[in-house]
Amino acid sequence: MKQATDLIISGSYLLPDAHQKNLIKNGAIAITGDTITAMGPKETILSQFSADRHMHTEHGLIMPGLINTHTHAAMACFRGLADDLPLMTWLEEHIFPVEARWTPEMVYHSTLLSIAEMIKSGTTSFCDMYLFSKEVARATEESGMRAWVGEVLYDFPSPCYGELENGFSYVEELFAQYKSHPLISITADPHSVYTCSPELLTRLGHVAQDHDSLYSIHLSENDAEVTACKERYDCSPVEHLENLGLLHPKTLAAHCVMLDDKEIGLLTEREVKVAHCQESNMKLASGTAPVVKMLEAGVTVGIGTDGAASNNDVDMFGEMDTVAKSHKVARMDPTAMTAEQTLHAATLGGAECLNAETITGTLTVGKKADMIVLNMNQPHLTPLYNIPSQLVYAAQGADVLHSIINGRIVMESRELKSLDEDRILARMREIGQSVANHGKD
Amino acid sequence: MKQATDLIISGSYLLPDAHQKNLIKNGAIAITGDTITAMGPKETILSQFSADRHMHTEHGLIMPGLINTHTHAAMACFRGLADDLPLMTWLEEHIFPVEARWTPEMVYHSTLLSIAEMIKSGTTSFCDMYLFSKEVARATEESGMRAWVGEVLYDFPSPCYGELENGFSYVEELFAQYKSHPLISITADPHSVYTCSPELLTRLGHVAQDHDSLYSIHLSENDAEVTACKERYDCSPVEHLENLGLLHPKTLAAHCVMLDDKEIGLLTEREVKVAHCQESNMKLASGTAPVVKMLEAGVTVGIGTDGAASNNDVDMFGEMDTVAKSHKVARMDPTAMTAEQTLHAATLGGAECLNAETITGTLTVGKKADMIVLNMNQPHLTPLYNIPSQLVYAAQGADVLHSIINGRIVMESRELKSLDEDRILARMREIGQSVANHGKD
Repeated sequence: MKQATDLIISGSYLLPDAHQKNLIKNGAIAITGDTITAMGPKETILSQFSADRHMHTEHGLIMPGLINTHTHAAMACFRGLADDLPLMTWLEEHIFPVEARWTPEMVYHSTLLSIAEMIKSGTTSFCDMYLFSKEVARATEESGMRAWVGEVLYDFPSPCYGELENGFSYVEELFAQYKSHPLISITADPHSVYTCSPELLTRLGHVAQDHDSLYSIHLSENDAEVTACKERYDCSPVEHLENLGLLHPKTLAAHCVMLDDKEIGLLTEREVKVAHCQESNMKLASGTAPVVKMLEAGVTVGIGTDGAASNNDVDMFGEMDTVAKSHKVARMDPTAMTAEQTLHAATLGGAECLNAETITGTLTVGKKADMIVLNMNQPHLTPLYNIPSQLVYAAQGADVLHSIINGRIVMESRELKSLDEDRILARMREIGQSVANHGKD
Repeated sequence: MKQATDLIISGSYLLPDAHQKNLIKNGAIAITGDTITAMGPKETILSQFSADRHMHTEHGLIMPGLINTHTHAAMACFRGLADDLPLMTWLEEHIFPVEARWTPEMVYHSTLLSIAEMIKSGTTSFCDMYLFSKEVARATEESGMRAWVGEVLYDFPSPCYGELENGFSYVEELFAQYKSHPLISITADPHSVYTCSPELLTRLGHVAQDHDSLYSIHLSENDAEVTACKERYDCSPVEHLENLGLLHPKTLAAHCVMLDDKEIGLLTEREVKVAHCQESNMKLASGTAPVVKMLEAGVTVGIGTDGAASNNDVDMFGEMDTVAKSHKVARMDPTAMTAEQTLHAATLGGAECLNAETITGTLTVGKKADMIVLNMNQPHLTPLYNIPSQLVYAAQGADVLHSIINGRIVMESRELKSLDEDRILARMREIGQSVANHGKD
């Protein structure tokens, strides 16, 4: 008598985590509700389970969905609006003026655009920091993605909530609204040490503590930030947070480009998590984060794309390729940042960054069913000697055929099932047109 | 009365070269035989020409096909066979042993695999240096791609031709076989200054001169090469070629990672062309070539993927993204290596590297019809403010829908028309299996 289950996913290859040695050829996964209930050779699973639906992909690779640990999804609206400019020119003359004219509706649609891109390139979980984050959460909820969402706070008035005090109420409303949501977790998001007073940083720290949430912040992104911090507080950004008691296992620090060995030691000791955004750091010429040293020191590192305005995509496959190659050349060592280390950072490492390693990041019985299926029957993925290598160095977002999040099929044969892609693209073309027209004023 | 033409290609956007200012919205191109005969707004072209076939792509971008100035196509067979290793371990324990067992048939199929990938990712011309290059040329001829093909020569016996003297006859046979071929040009290919004696370098220089061909060589790829050259010849690799009189406008130097200002000056003065292979240089931890300095000095720079064994793909869209971002972070300057400069290097710059700027590299009336059409109606390419930016920072190989080379449609709606993709993939899986099995001996 076979056991009943909702969905069986099978394919020529099943890679449960970042390690080639764990590859199962002709593998299958049984999903009941939102959870992985069994995994193994296809024949075994099919002999033990009967499912309402069986999705088999010949030459398909089943693997954990990718985890984007740092993005600003709605900034997809500004993809390519202005590039190749000095940081302050880019921000002050291009990004801030358009952000000042944001409406909640624009943020909602721009977030949907980025989510559509994320699903189509294999991401199943993301951590977002942005303005109008109720709209971000609303779009995320519609899509069925797993996400950590926060409203960014800083000392100056926000286009979303106005004066800072309102920001705190906005954040509390978000926490209330998404309490015990199966897919969306709210985070406390101070923008950075250079835009937030010590009081703001500390107060948001208490908010995070009250809600047992992540504390997500940009940290040591570039030399200018470090210099300004040293001038103001006579210490580095990392030391500044340490002095305020804000380095702890639920601190998710994005970038961490400028770190010395002592600071890496502090991050290790405090179990701070790092979201590494290499392509954005390259494009904005911030530098290359000492990721290999961090990993050696035992820091948990995930990968983030940052927003599409500084990348200019949110494709985690492209990001993995850049990450692995960048650290080899930065250290002049071809053995640095292996494919498996990189794939780990984009999956389980990312889950650990979000304190979600018991929920997602690997294909494991009992975890939530977050997985993608790639079509490996393509010239750039042939021959196939080593799957982590192929995924990091040769695969691209468009190779993802199917995506399952929390047991729900959100993409099948590249067609989005939870979102109306045509409608999103059409609306974003209109929004883009209005942004471009305003730029000509 | 309308003028008769063979083919009209139209789309929502027509970008004739790397410059946004030259964009034609709703553009069309008329092709007669192998040549572009007219170009302009779609309405104008349709009012002037009647064609046997009109291919229109809504939301399609028509642009010049990309030019891969340095690859070893057949090495696609070794994609992912061994990664993350020191260079000499990789070569001596993994690549050389399998290359020693190459058969012409394996090279032929492996080249077809790489060509399939190149066409599917938007490349229309490539420059190849490898062993068994008659097989490379045969595969290329079947595919309809435009290519520069050479047999690599070095001091030690070759798996292809055996003793060096036979290599020279092999090269002469190639020149004879492809004399006046419409798509294939033969090149003279000394491997490098560290594997070729001065006599070999010079003799191949004469061969190139006799046939008025390119002289294609790996040059100053890494520190080890420079050190060895200085020990043996008391000068750098660039100076060594200069001393031998081998720096000239038909010299195509791949890599050029290790260059000082004086050497850049020499390359400028001698009008040497440079094939920049950033992803391979990163993956093998060779370094980052001083491309921005070279461009400032007036050196012609094209982009190459190198072979898929050290990349591990031949996707020029991915390569452009890495190139633009790498030079920004290497120079700590976000204005370095703009999207337009990068796109130029991948198109007209590449054509100039191959002395083919009157034939390809831009969409220009009178040039050969080498073009691709991308589907811009996708989340990661929306909104659309600036096309060169979108192509360099956000597009991926899989966005290419159609490819036309020398007036012939070689891919339509991602289906290869000149090659049997399924057959190539099936044969390469078998070859890959035999390579993998041998590795287990």
